[in-house]
Amino acid sequence: MTRFFVAPEELQPDFLVLTGENARHAKVLRLKEGEEVLVCDGYGKECICTVSDVSPEQISLVVRKRQESETEATVRVSVYMAFPKADKLEHVIQKATELGAYEIVAFPSARCVSRPDDKSLSKKLERWQKIAASAAEQSGRGIVPQVLVLPSYKTALERAAQADKALLFYENERSTTLKMALQSGAYQTVSLLTGPEGGLELSEVKQAEDAGLQVCTLGKRILRCETAPLCALSAVMYDAGEF
Amino acid sequence: MTRFFVAPEELQPDFLVLTGENARHAKVLRLKEGEEVLVCDGYGKECICTVSDVSPEQISLVVRKRQESETEATVRVSVYMAFPKADKLEHVIQKATELGAYEIVAFPSARCVSRPDDKSLSKKLERWQKIAASAAEQSGRGIVPQVLVLPSYKTALERAAQADKALLFYENERSTTLKMALQSGAYQTVSLLTGPEGGLELSEVKQAEDAGLQVCTLGKRILRCETAPLCALSAVMYDAGEF
Repeated sequence: MTRFFVAPEELQPDFLVLTGENARHAKVLRLKEGEEVLVCDGYGKECICTVSDVSPEQISLVVRKRQESETEATVRVSVYMAFPKADKLEHVIQKATELGAYEIVAFPSARCVSRPDDKSLSKKLERWQKIAASAAEQSGRGIVPQVLVLPSYKTALERAAQADKALLFYENERSTTLKMALQSGAYQTVSLLTGPEGGLELSEVKQAEDAGLQVCTLGKRILRCETAPLCALSAVMYDAGEF
Repeated sequence: MTRFFVAPEELQPDFLVLTGENARHAKVLRLKEGEEVLVCDGYGKECICTVSDVSPEQISLVVRKRQESETEATVRVSVYMAFPKADKLEHVIQKATELGAYEIVAFPSARCVSRPDDKSLSKKLERWQKIAASAAEQSGRGIVPQVLVLPSYKTALERAAQADKALLFYENERSTTLKMALQSGAYQTVSLLTGPEGGLELSEVKQAEDAGLQVCTLGKRILRCETAPLCALSAVMYDAGEF
């Protein structure tokens, strides 16, 4: 069933109207009277609706059933990624959303080559949030993951450390596996922190340990900076019993 | 340590010469006399070497130590992917190689929109194999995964079914999870089969079951055709104790 996200205040009890981007999307899909669609508020509430009227500017819907979203993971995984080059962050936002991430948090680290300046940041954030919204629609998410940008590595560590499992992946770690870290106790929230193309500096890894993060390996092979967070996220979802 | 792949017959006991693409790559990296590099035969054997001479056409190496590769997974995972559109197969080849896949097998299925014709196939295969080789070098693999193309869905099923765990992922499967399939018994070889953009047809899923594949879910969210194999591969590597 096609899924649309609207602002929470638009999720009315009996009737709904799709406008703007949603209406344009509905046109592309050639939605017709009588068809069923799912409308979500992006925070876990959704309505099954029937199309009642299609006009050039808007699509009118009748609400058939309200429900809590059933597609969200029971575990809340935050993906913390050091700014990568080019379009890799966009790739990770799209894929992490599909894979069920709760939020995606970008931050600077010592070896980051790319880092948006303050001027371009608000425009980029808007674009990244759109990518998350689009991936959430396509993959059938009940929420749209928030994309956040933090001003420093330190603030990223402090925020990440608040999860039940706060994990940093480091290519030179040999002994502690992700499995050891996850299976040492129950968890409902997880932070997964990965470095940029050049990796994290050893001093940054130590700083993370001091902040309360556990340093883990993702195996014997070196993963690209855009592959590591998605590999870790897939494994956490698997471990948490999502599939 | 920088890693080069050479043909098995080039892996001599005492001295080695890097030529062609490898020599060009060594130039780009500005390798100097005395530096250490790793030279692999792509089949799990490798040598630690020291650069002894750099000339415009070739790089001469002295073999210091021969060893078996230590970066290969203990489990052999074959990724079977129905031909996707555009460059998605290239993406999957690169990422699956990083994640430790043993081989990547492309095949046609009913809803495949894209499918290389026989003329362009050998050129494409060459390109795909290069992508695997390059990703194997970068991620530190001991082998270069083979990229194979099979002529029909039926041949893909027959080949995939020979693994200890032969699994097909289907978005309408609700009960059998990947975890249930993996934890029902020990395994050393795994086949992971996924469909194209439009998914597999129900008749194809039934055909796969008849061929001996087990149908599993990757969770409540709908994954894109290029995300599903990498998610499944990550989870299998995790389950097998790789990280």
